[in-house]
This record gives sequence, structure tokens and C-alpha cells, in this order.
Amino acid sequence: MRFAQPLALASGASLADYELVYETYGELNASRSNAVLVCHALNASHHVAGVHADAPGNEGWWDNMVGPGKPLDTRRFFVVGVNNPGSCFGSTGPMSINPATGRRYGPDFPVVTVEDWVHAQARLADALGIERFAAVMGGSLGGMQALAWSTLYPQRVAHCIAIASTPRLSAQNIAFNEVARRAIITDPEFHGGRFYDHGVVPRRGLQVARMIGHITYLSDDTMAERFGRARRGRAEGDGYDFGFEVEFEIESYLRYQGEKFSAYFDANTYLLITRALDYFDPAAAHGGNLAAALAPATADFLIASFTTDWRFSPARSREIVHALLANRRAVTYAEIDAPHGHDAFLLDDPQYHAVVRAYFERIAQGLT
Amino acid sequence: MRFAQPLALASGASLADYELVYETYGELNASRSNAVLVCHALNASHHVAGVHADAPGNEGWWDNMVGPGKPLDTRRFFVVGVNNPGSCFGSTGPMSINPATGRRYGPDFPVVTVEDWVHAQARLADALGIERFAAVMGGSLGGMQALAWSTLYPQRVAHCIAIASTPRLSAQNIAFNEVARRAIITDPEFHGGRFYDHGVVPRRGLQVARMIGHITYLSDDTMAERFGRARRGRAEGDGYDFGFEVEFEIESYLRYQGEKFSAYFDANTYLLITRALDYFDPAAAHGGNLAAALAPATADFLIASFTTDWRFSPARSREIVHALLANRRAVTYAEIDAPHGHDAFLLDDPQYHAVVRAYFERIAQGLT
Repeated sequence: MRFAQPLALASGASLADYELVYETYGELNASRSNAVLVCHALNASHHVAGVHADAPGNEGWWDNMVGPGKPLDTRRFFVVGVNNPGSCFGSTGPMSINPATGRRYGPDFPVVTVEDWVHAQARLADALGIERFAAVMGGSLGGMQALAWSTLYPQRVAHCIAIASTPRLSAQNIAFNEVARRAIITDPEFHGGRFYDHGVVPRRGLQVARMIGHITYLSDDTMAERFGRARRGRAEGDGYDFGFEVEFEIESYLRYQGEKFSAYFDANTYLLITRALDYFDPAAAHGGNLAAALAPATADFLIASFTTDWRFSPARSREIVHALLANRRAVTYAEIDAPHGHDAFLLDDPQYHAVVRAYFERIAQGLT
Repeated sequence: MRFAQPLALASGASLADYELVYETYGELNASRSNAVLVCHALNASHHVAGVHADAPGNEGWWDNMVGPGKPLDTRRFFVVGVNNPGSCFGSTGPMSINPATGRRYGPDFPVVTVEDWVHAQARLADALGIERFAAVMGGSLGGMQALAWSTLYPQRVAHCIAIASTPRLSAQNIAFNEVARRAIITDPEFHGGRFYDHGVVPRRGLQVARMIGHITYLSDDTMAERFGRARRGRAEGDGYDFGFEVEFEIESYLRYQGEKFSAYFDANTYLLITRALDYFDPAAAHGGNLAAALAPATADFLIASFTTDWRFSPARSREIVHALLANRRAVTYAEIDAPHGHDAFLLDDPQYHAVVRAYFERIAQGLT
């Protein structure tokens, strides 16, 4: 969907004339009360659920969560997935043509924030005739968007669902983002973000960035269980290769993930989205007081975390819960005992899905 | 010191005619019973303590631990520091001339193991007239060398001191090493390890590798305390820069560490030493049974770990302790409550230093 009215951004810049691509699942009911917005994280998109007829292998990134009979049941809810501006899956981003110059934005695409995305999403909601969402929902960076919705548009969010999220990145989180960005920016094929003009992609930088990311998405335990010290085609006790090619299974896995990612993800988008993560910190404008930052919210909340998530640990989710309770909000908090680390929010852990299912059943019962 | 007899390596290769540089502190006593070998970790060297007259700022890497009146007191002990083969501080390594070709070894330098280093160190001990060490000591990778000494040369080690170490790397540990190696190997200025011939250094890859390493050396808590979300020249609540230059203090710190490191450390050495870390796994030859692997040891042991070390956590040290106890070895184990993560082994935490001091006092009392 094309938007002609400029979008003013937190940086002071603005996006004139931009496109937002979106998908919907299910039917909006007559009272327009059953809409749920699903916000994506770093490398996902508007393609939340289902399979495209023209791309049979391309299952939506949260297909185990969203669909007929699934925890977010599209027989009852009208689900909206939207690709955020700055991303690389169809909405206006660094790969788009900058109308001011006639060439791709590249590094000129303005730095965007979680709040900017929320404002863009609100305009899409206007265009779709959705005054108020039954729920705004997301995991990780998507959870940050849900939290921002609850304070920027309190009257438009009945329920806010933030999974494996955090009220702000820690120094360690920023550190991992920064290393990934340095890997990309220092790749000679990045060309200061103008690699499109050179017909190349900073694929080495993207690979390293993705490998670093992947380590932080998995728990130490999961890695130990899935890979341990296993070697490709060798038994324990067999001699080593004594080289630097792939030898341990974990090396093979990470290289594969890095290569796959570098083939489809835009390097400028990686910089933009990690910066949006770094910048999210609603409490900063309130002297670090998260409860004050969340005071405008009127929604009910579901906050969920995973015991082995060391990227955004349960302690970070509990900060959100405590701040909400200080505001006397209705909060359901689930700390799921799951082995998969941060990645768990994308997996179909039965306990986790049961919690989300029950929460949406409660929401459905209150629908008018 | 030059060694003319070839050193056979675990890989099947051998090093003909190699140099080991070393430093000693204190005096070997008449009965040659007071020698202590200090083994270095990834980026350290034979320069363990003191200051070189010709390089006044260049303090030894464990100067807070080793010296007159320090926990390892050089008024009582004769301390030996040796740079391992494959390293880049003077001993034969990838930067050395390969006698077989007349050019630098570069990628032709054979992959070396912890056990290879121990055999090289044993030859140095022979040359110095040290039949038996009062102690072999190291932190992290240095601790692995101390453990290997205790089983490869049990009669030559009276006490083994392994600090912040592990009996083997986990999949996550290998993963971090692999990402660092990929950053180096995919840097176009690496030139397949022959960058010397091109007059360049894969400095971007080394920087990223070091930044990754640094994140794993510090605890999440230390990073939060030292850097938090502080920004350079800005107060909390001030606006953001909306760019990708250094903004957060943690970014500045990591870039500085990366740049400093890339100016002095050899890229091929980085590959070799991380591979030696990956490969260390004495239990593998015993079906994973660490107690069986350590059975030959006759030394007494001091094992120490740090509560916030998430690289080689206390649980990893406890594995060593349990295996030693299964062999009825005399083990002192200290789990130090320190905030600094893996780096703590290099810092002068009072509780930690008191433990090491007391252990060496006991050793000193038993000296003949």
C-alpha cells in the first residue's frame, strides 16, 4: 500500500511517499473488533503465516502460531502482518529508489526507530479501517513494537503481547550488534552502503554478522545437545583434520546459516534494524523509570520469556512486568521452561503455545 | 633458544629447527626444585612479569601475579615464561622463515595442539636443567597446558594450577572461535594466509575477531556496570546520533580493543591458537571419560574459577575437580565470587590472589 503523506521520523528526517507491504489472514468481523497486528523481528517480514502459491517452500515465519486452529486462530481473528520501513522485503527501504535522487537510498535511508515503525503501522491500520486492535503482538524486536504501541496509541490496543523481549538492550546486546555492523561496514564490498551501484553484495560481512547473531539466538545447552563436539563424518576419538575447513558440526551449521542469510538479506537493512534495537529505550525519556514510561498504557498484557534465553533473559521480561504492575495494569506473565534460548519464541513448544492459545481464547470471549 | 632436533607434532607434521623465546624471573635454587612454569593463553607471551628496559610501558601480562612479594613470589620461586610455537612473539611461528622454502610459513605452519606445546616446553625445561617443576600454572588456555603437563609428564609436575579453564570447549565456545576465524579468513587482505607477501594485514578481520573475543571475556554484569547504555558526550535522555558511527561507549571500547589488537597480532597465529583451543579434549581418547584421561596425573592440583565467567564457567572447572577426585588426587578448588567474567583470571581480585598466594606458600614450605 502506497502512502503519499510524509512520515516524520524520530531522527528529524522524513519519508516522503512510501510503500508498506502487508498480508492479512482471516476475516475482519462486522464490528472491526477482531484485528491482531503481528510485528516482525530482525529478519522476518509481513509474510507471517501460510504459504504463497507462487513460492511453495516459503512458509510464513510464524506459521506454527498463526492460522486456522492455531494459538492465534485465524478462524476468529483477522491477523495483519506488515513489513516495516527500512526492511528489505517489499516495503520502502534502502533498496528502494529515493525519489529525491532517482537512485537507491542505500546509506541515505534514514535511521528508523521502533516508534517510527509503530507510527507507520498505525497509518496502515487507518487505511484498513482498524480503529482498535484486539491485540498487538510480537517476539523479540516485535515485542518492543507491541510495547511501543501500548504507550503511543493506548486507545488502539486492547491487549499487548510481548514475547522474549526487553525494555532496552544491555551493553552486551549492543556489543554483539556493533560487531555484526563492523563486519558488514568493513567488508570492502559494502562500498559505504552503495554496493548496489557496484553490482556486489558484502556477503562476507553479512555471513559473519549472521553467524554472530545465531550464536546469541541459541542457548549454550541447545548447541551442546544439537552439535556438541561432533565432527562431520568422524567418531569421537578419531583424529582431527588439522586445518581450518569445516570440521565440527557447529561450524558447518553456522557457515550454512551465514551463507543462506547473505543470499537474501540486505546489508543496509541489517544496520538499520540493529540500530533500531540499540535505540529502543522508552524509559530513557523518564530518567530511566520504566513504570513512568509505560504509564500511558491502558491495555492488558501478556509477557512471556524463556528460561534459557540469554539474549533477552527472563529477568528483562520481569522488568517489564514489574513496571506494568506498578501501574496496576492487568498482566499475565509466563516464564517458559524451554531449552532453545531466544529462538524458542519461534518454535512450537507446547507449554508456550498453550499459554498464548489460552490468552487469545480469553480475548475472543470478550470480542463484541 | 634454538632447538635443532625436530619436534614431532600431533598432526603428523614436524617442526625442524625451531626457536623458543622465554623469560625467567627469580633464581633457580641449588636443588633445582623451585621452578614454576607459567603457560600463556591466546594473546600473551613469554613476557609474564616485569618491565623491559627498552620498552617501559610493556608490563608483563601477569605482572600482578608474578614478582617479588606477589602471589607467585619470585624471591622464592624461579619462574619460566615461554612463548609457544605458532605464536607471534618471537618463537617459531607463521611469521618465521620456513627453512624448507626460504619464505615465511604463513598458512604452511602446521596446526599445533596444546600437547605439542607441552612437549616443546618440556624440551626447554630439559635445556634449563629443570627435571621437575614445583608447579605448572596457567589461566584459560594456559590452564589446559597445565592439565596436559600433569598427564603427559606426571613425574615432572609437583603441582598443577589451572585457573578459569575447561577440559574441553563447548559447541558455543567453538562457534565463537569459528566466527572469529571466518572474519579473518574472508578478509580479502588475508590472501589465504600469505598477506605478508602482499605487504598488508587482514586488519578488518582481526578487529572483528578481537571484538567478538572481548565480548566473551567480559561478564554481562561488568559490561552493564562499566558501559551500560552510556553514550559518548551525551547524557541519558539526550537524543541519538541516528547513524552508525561510534555512539555508545561500549562501541568505542570494542573498536579500540579491535584496532589495538590488529596492530600487533598475527592473523595466522589467531587461527592456530583458536584451533588448539577447539582441539583440546583429553577425554576424547578415553570415550569421553575425563577421570580416565587424568588418571596418569600424580600432582596436587589447584583449580579455580570465577562465578561470572560464562566462557569457561565454574561448572567446567568442577568437571575437572570431580575427575581428579575420582582419581583420589589432592585438589584445592576455589570458586571466586568476582564480577569480571573470564577476564578475572588476569585481574588482581584480592580473594583470588589470596588463594593463589596461600597455595604457593604451601608449595614453598615443601621445597627441599
